[in-house]
Parts: sequence; C-alpha cells; structure tokens
Amino acid sequence: MTTYRQFVLASRPQGEVVPSNFRMETVQAPALKDGEVLVRNHYLSLDPYMRMRMEDVKSYSAPQALDAVMVGGTAGEVVESRNPKFSTGDKVVGYLGWAEMGVSTGAGLNKVDTTHIPLSAYLGAVGMPGMTAWYGLTQIMQPKPGETIVVSAASGAVGSVVGQLAKQRGCRAVGIAGGPEKCAYVVNELGFDACIDYKAGNLAADLAAATPDGIDALFENVGGAIFDECLARMNPFGRIALCGLIAGYEGEPMVLKNVRNFLTMRLTMRGFIVSEHPDLWPQGLKELGALVAGGKLKFRESVAQGLPAAPEAFIGLLKGRNFGKQVVKLV
Amino acid sequence: MTTYRQFVLASRPQGEVVPSNFRMETVQAPALKDGEVLVRNHYLSLDPYMRMRMEDVKSYSAPQALDAVMVGGTAGEVVESRNPKFSTGDKVVGYLGWAEMGVSTGAGLNKVDTTHIPLSAYLGAVGMPGMTAWYGLTQIMQPKPGETIVVSAASGAVGSVVGQLAKQRGCRAVGIAGGPEKCAYVVNELGFDACIDYKAGNLAADLAAATPDGIDALFENVGGAIFDECLARMNPFGRIALCGLIAGYEGEPMVLKNVRNFLTMRLTMRGFIVSEHPDLWPQGLKELGALVAGGKLKFRESVAQGLPAAPEAFIGLLKGRNFGKQVVKLV
Repeated sequence: MTTYRQFVLASRPQGEVVPSNFRMETVQAPALKDGEVLVRNHYLSLDPYMRMRMEDVKSYSAPQALDAVMVGGTAGEVVESRNPKFSTGDKVVGYLGWAEMGVSTGAGLNKVDTTHIPLSAYLGAVGMPGMTAWYGLTQIMQPKPGETIVVSAASGAVGSVVGQLAKQRGCRAVGIAGGPEKCAYVVNELGFDACIDYKAGNLAADLAAATPDGIDALFENVGGAIFDECLARMNPFGRIALCGLIAGYEGEPMVLKNVRNFLTMRLTMRGFIVSEHPDLWPQGLKELGALVAGGKLKFRESVAQGLPAAPEAFIGLLKGRNFGKQVVKLV
Repeated sequence: MTTYRQFVLASRPQGEVVPSNFRMETVQAPALKDGEVLVRNHYLSLDPYMRMRMEDVKSYSAPQALDAVMVGGTAGEVVESRNPKFSTGDKVVGYLGWAEMGVSTGAGLNKVDTTHIPLSAYLGAVGMPGMTAWYGLTQIMQPKPGETIVVSAASGAVGSVVGQLAKQRGCRAVGIAGGPEKCAYVVNELGFDACIDYKAGNLAADLAAATPDGIDALFENVGGAIFDECLARMNPFGRIALCGLIAGYEGEPMVLKNVRNFLTMRLTMRGFIVSEHPDLWPQGLKELGALVAGGKLKFRESVAQGLPAAPEAFIGLLKGRNFGKQVVKLV
C-alpha cells in the first residue's frame, strides 16, 4: 500500500497561528474507484486566505473543519488514473490540500502544460494569485495610461503581478513592501517606478514623494495603517480593489480612520474573491501564461522543503518573512 | 433702492458650528445688467454638505470663501428680469445662497411648476435631496425585490425618500433615526417596515431584529458606530451608497472597525455627490415629481421663520434637531 503524509487542522488559533494548530498524519492512499485519479503533489501553495479559513466565523467560505486536511492549492503529477480524461504522468493543478498525495474525481483538477511554464508557476503568477491580480486590476481598478496605481505587499505573489500588469498598461506603478531588499527587488527586477519600505518609519512622507499626482487606483492586500495612508492620497473617483487585510488576520484591530475620504473623493471600493469569477479565468490565464512564457512577467518564489516545513512556512508568510510566492516543495 | 439681508461666513468653525461663524449683512440689490434676473427667495434650503464647505480642507468642492455669501439652494420668484428666458412672477430654484434676494445670469436657475408641487418641495423631495436618494438607490444600491435595504437618518430629507422608493421597488425598508417620534413617523407615515431608534441604546440587537435576513444594500448618511453596526450585518455582495458622514462633520473621529466585512462579504461601496451626475437628473426628477404630485411620496419639513433664524436652524440640523427637510421661510 502507498502511504503519504498530510496536515489536518488540530485546533483553531487564539491570536497568532502556532505550529500546534496543525497535526501531521500518515495515511494510506485508498484504492481508486472508477473516475478517480491519484495525484502525487510536487508543490503545495501557501496563501494568506488560509488564515481566515482557520477561524470559525462567518466569511466568504465555510471554515476549515477541524481534523480535516488543511485546504490548499497543489501542483503535481497523476500517478494512477481510472478517469479517461487523465493519464499517468499528466501534470495537474488542483486543491488537494496540505498533503503529499491526493485522490480526485477530476472535478477542479486541471491539466497544465509545463513546456514553457514551470509547474510551480501554476500556483502563482499563472494561478490563483496571478488571477487575483489580473481580476482586481482589470475589473475593479481599471487604470488608464498615465494614472498612478499603488499596491501593498508588492513583492508578493499577487502584488508583484499587479504592478507589472499596470506598467504594461502605461501606468505609474508604486509598491509598498517590508524592508530594503524587497523594495529593491520590486523596482529593479519587477520594474515598478517606486517602492516604499513601510518598515522605514516614514510611510506618509515616502508615499507622498512616490505619488506626486496622488493615487488613482489602489490594490489593497494589507489593511491597517498602510491602507489608511493610501486612502489619504486617493484622487477623486479613485478605485480600490480590496483583496486582503493580512495585517488583521491574526486578530489585530483592523480600523480605518480616513473614512471621510471615501466620501469627499467619491471613491469606489470593492472586496472580491477571484474564485467567484470563473468566467474570467480563461481570459486572464491566457494573458498571464503568455507573459510568463515570454519572460515578460517575472516572479520569485520562497520554497520550503518538504511537507513537515509547511506550518513554519505558513507562519512566516503571515509575518511577511517570505519573499515572493510561498510554496512547499514536496518531492 | 431695494435692500435685502444675507449671511456671509465670518469665521471657520473650530469643532462645533457656533452662531458667530456667520454674519448677517444688509446689502443693496444692484441694477440689473442685460441677461440678469433678480429673484426674491421664498425658501432657503439647509443641508449637511454646507458643514464640509465651511472648512478649508481638500474635498469635493472648493471651500466656502470667508466674507462671501454662504452657499445654499433657494426657491423663489423672479421680481425683475432682463433675461428673455425669465419673466416676473416665474417660480425658480437655484443656488442663490443664504440671502433674501439674489441676482442670477440664469445659469443654474430653473423654472418650476407649482401647480401640483409646493415650491419648497423643489428643495427637498423633488430637488437635490430627492435626487441624492434616487441616485444612490437606483445607481449604487440597485436593490432587487425582496431584498432588505437600510438607510440611516431615515426621517430626513434624503433618507425618507430612499426608503419610500425602495418600498415601491418591492424591498424591505429599514430606517435608523433618533428618537421614538421620528421612528414612529418613519414607519407609520412613510411606510418603512421598521425603524430603529439609535438613541435607545440597543442598536446592534435592534438592527439584528429588524434585519433577520441581513442587509443587502445600505444608504449611509451618518457614519461612526451606526455605519459599523450596519457593516456587521451586510450580506455577500452587498452595496453601500456612501452619501454622508454627518456624525463626523464636527470633527469627531470617524473610525470604522468592521473593515474586514468589506472583504469577507465582497461589498461594493461608492461615495457620491449627486451634482456630478446631471445627466440623470431629468429622469430622476420626473419620477420624484410624479410621485409627490400623486401623493405617493411623502415628506415633512422643519420650517424656520425668517433669515435671521438660519444659523440656529443649521446648528440644529447638524445635531439632528430637525424633523424632515430643514428649510428657512424667507417671505
């Protein structure tokens, strides 16, 4: 019998996530039924949304169940198939969770072509994070050439794509990231016009200097003080794509003070979850895939080695210790 | 020579507005030039937006200049005309300010028909406040029959129209107002399904009881704790028309705590100023005028007597002492 390891949610976090919130188990791969495929996961994607799922609160999806395999996007290879649509050796992406292997009926499992695009990129720039960036930019921010866009968590899996897509559309792209190394990467490698180190302690002044004409559109990943400072610089009729509030995911108060600017600047803000817009994925992934294959959309990965490293890597992601897309390499 | 009285802005408020922020002057009506008309104002409209204009801050319009006539909507009668489009006796609405008379070139001055609609209503339900309600409801909230809408300041000039229009569209309409008298009026006279007295001290529980299926669309006039409680009950894909934040107009902190709900419920919020959408006024005013003329859109006025009463009436408006549309009767 084939066995593999997986993580289940052992307990819900009280404030910050701790390793003991997860429990690793070794399980047997079941015999496949008709229509099923067995996948060996090569990469597990770690994403901020998982933090919200760990809580038992009303949100956009049901909470992660206790003692069930942690939710998560995966990229891997079919090792056994009783489904005519999949063959052994097919590279596939899906949501098989924090696990070295998984069984799928084929629903939600998609074959991918790794000829010109590395497998792990289907968890990042050509996957959910890339689509998140593409959706927020094209459907909510709708920037015009010459406008200034700002994106927080700019070196991350989503933010890095937002800025690069905006540059390709003729915008001034300004990032916000934590630390000089990330900021240098955002400007020098990703090609943003500027990047502000929010840890440097001069957020308001640095943001003002980097956005002399104000902010026309904002992609918000963080919340808290960073969001508030951006609000204060929004131009009339500005658009805000609200994608994440990672600064508040560990229970910190998530308060906004510059609320009046929503009114005085006649801003539009929309919170969104990209998985609710499947109709646009083919269009977005086509653009993202072509850009990555052509070397015109750059990305960077933080790679943790082996499934046992997943909890610490996830905790690091919540603290901003990752640099680019956080994945766990499983084989 | 004809003389009349007017109020100018004498000083900008430090915190709460006080009577000495205004100064009444008696001036002479000038001799008309070609193209001009002289109007005797019968009613002055008092509206919360004036409070923001009194401050020298970046906002959606230039601040009210010191020593200039206070901005304000007016309804009156042409008493002299050197403009072929206007005749003596014409009833007109415009923005002639806190003044008993005014000279206009005709720009921004509109003739109105008082056969079936009282003149003062053109400053309320069939004027800017009514259009504000109509725009926010039809263009931003876009409620479907059966949905629950909530509007704060529900007995006021704007809120009262929001709820009545929503009822006509098959919605459940819930108001929030201050005090049992206003709440009884909102339910019994205006026909809302429920009205919550925010002064009763049970806002969260009362709101929950009045919105058992949550809130699908919100018309926000107030801000602060009332806005926060509504945010906590928004349904997925809820829409928020942000029209005013009167709770913060006197310098009180305007903080939002339930920011996370914008994301988890995928809300859309848009701040707006109805004067920026002139293309929609004919359509909106046609509906509002027909409803008022037919007795199907009810409104109530607080009428202050004589121009000297304007400052105190305005201060009362900011404190919620008015009941319905606040006007000043000038003749």
